[in-house]
Amino acid sequence: MTMLILTTGGTLDKIHDTYTEGLVFGENSHMEELLRIGRSFMPRIENLMRLDSLDMTDNDREHILQAVLVAPETQIVITHGTGTMEQTAKFLSGRIGDKTVILTGSMRPFSLGKSDAGFNIGGAVIAAQTMPSGVYGVMNGRIFEASELRKDVKAGRFDG
Amino acid sequence: MTMLILTTGGTLDKIHDTYTEGLVFGENSHMEELLRIGRSFMPRIENLMRLDSLDMTDNDREHILQAVLVAPETQIVITHGTGTMEQTAKFLSGRIGDKTVILTGSMRPFSLGKSDAGFNIGGAVIAAQTMPSGVYGVMNGRIFEASELRKDVKAGRFDG
Amino acid sequence: MTMLILTTGGTLDKIHDTYTEGLVFGENSHMEELLRIGRSFMPRIENLMRLDSLDMTDNDREHILQAVLVAPETQIVITHGTGTMEQTAKFLSGRIGDKTVILTGSMRPFSLGKSDAGFNIGGAVIAAQTMPSGVYGVMNGRIFEASELRKDVKAGRFDG
Amino acid sequence: MTMLILTTGGTLDKIHDTYTEGLVFGENSHMEELLRIGRSFMPRIENLMRLDSLDMTDNDREHILQAVLVAPETQIVITHGTGTMEQTAKFLSGRIGDKTVILTGSMRPFSLGKSDAGFNIGGAVIAAQTMPSGVYGVMNGRIFEASELRKDVKAGRFDG
Repeated sequence: MTMLILTTGGTLDKIHDTYTEGLVFGENSHMEELLRIGRSFMPRIENLMRLDSLDMTDNDREHILQAVLVAPETQIVITHGTGTMEQTAKFLSGRIGDKTVILTGSMRPFSLGKSDAGFNIGGAVIAAQTMPSGVYGVMNGRIFEASELRKDVKAGRFDG
Repeated sequence: MTMLILTTGGTLDKIHDTYTEGLVFGENSHMEELLRIGRSFMPRIENLMRLDSLDMTDNDREHILQAVLVAPETQIVITHGTGTMEQTAKFLSGRIGDKTVILTGSMRPFSLGKSDAGFNIGGAVIAAQTMPSGVYGVMNGRIFEASELRKDVKAGRFDG
Repeated sequence: MTMLILTTGGTLDKIHDTYTEGLVFGENSHMEELLRIGRSFMPRIENLMRLDSLDMTDNDREHILQAVLVAPETQIVITHGTGTMEQTAKFLSGRIGDKTVILTGSMRPFSLGKSDAGFNIGGAVIAAQTMPSGVYGVMNGRIFEASELRKDVKAGRFDG
Repeated sequence: MTMLILTTGGTLDKIHDTYTEGLVFGENSHMEELLRIGRSFMPRIENLMRLDSLDMTDNDREHILQAVLVAPETQIVITHGTGTMEQTAKFLSGRIGDKTVILTGSMRPFSLGKSDAGFNIGGAVIAAQTMPSGVYGVMNGRIFEASELRKDVKAGRFDG
């Protein structure tokens, strides 16, 4: 097995809670179901944390970095909330050795249907196999270097 | 605009017909809707034909080749039935000049939900930007050279 | 428990088969999942047969009649292909004693999404509780007596 | 036309907002799309208000009552948030003359998929045609008189 998918939470993995009427994290990540629907080969999946990325601290980022460093795989996809994807990319950049790390996520939860999650993960999985070592973001069908990853909060896009 | 998506039909674009109870091609390709759900940047889309790939002839493949050659874009994604994706890849291989051509499709129609279409197109769009010139297939989260593209008909997979 | 749902097959319970590219019956009926999504109270479910209704014979109809007669429940919903729903309704009519039997089905399989199955079953479950004893069809938001149940094959509707 | 559907908001008509990450009301009710998917005959639809039912005042209820009274139709379905469906049912009860009024809604928004909305509306449309004049709620596959309509907030059900 040559690829690892680390899940950290973010919108992608939220579900609708009928009790509070809000979006919350469920018991489990949807990554395996998403990959099965995509009929993907099955990378190793490690569910690291379930955080809204606005709540993510540098402590959490250190935890992600360690998970990247200890992984035997060199192709690593990290699912991440879009709110601070940029900060985490910059945090990891230059510290991950000879690995290719792709951050991605979605603007609409996978569990709500009509989500961008499948399209983004499909792209991230390919980018992890084709990009040279380094840290990148894959969103909106585009690949961004860590230093160029920037969310237009109003438009909800990274390719503005 | 640097990317072109050519649609040729295939399972990806089929719809359920309540009258015949079978799967048929609708009036339009679902490519634009799929890209909007993926929140993708919008490549140029050219709907070239609507064929079950088992019905595709070398005449049709010549037509696809010409569309690739006259396109101003150098990054080209072709949606295609999985049944003869291999033949079309080999037909195009070595004739498309300095372009990157990615064939992809899906095993379950986009219009039926829970389809692999979004995941595959997401990967193909990234591959078209990252692979050197040549002809490739993207299926099951993997990239295959034209010469190595082979469908395991029984399993419905290319990564067997 | 006062209600029984008998499933007999029909479009409602078909699934897409990636191998043959056609619609086939899966291992199981989708009735329980459909009712769970509808957050319905749970009637007893009996999966009697899995038939395209065009293949249904009077032998099969006799089998359905017996299942209705031996059931301890007096409110009975039968899922059925739309093609011969009319024949089965007329076959059962006048033979089911003091019970309320509602036939329903769908034009688009439940498993393909955007199906009329949930709407129709929701209506049938209510009709089974509110209609006097007799045999009826519920389709298109309407209730039809057995003698008036007639599919407009071209339009795919019963309320033409 | 003999049936009217009044929409008042509630969870049924909420959508996911990618900007705030919460559930909000969109521009339009989803009622027509829901009925088209159900292949229903098309009642008249009047979009009266777009309220979370917890924000509904007796002023709003008076507004609903007037809409019921002036309607030429005698079969009326009202979509309503589940939080105060009981209060509105009791408010209307005894004041609506010779009409049949069915309140319904859903616990999961229609726009999120896998919603109970289609099942509930399917049931409400049938109840409006089969119940005698009066005010009722249809949820969980059951019909409740106004005086017996009671939400178990914790379970999110009315049939507890």
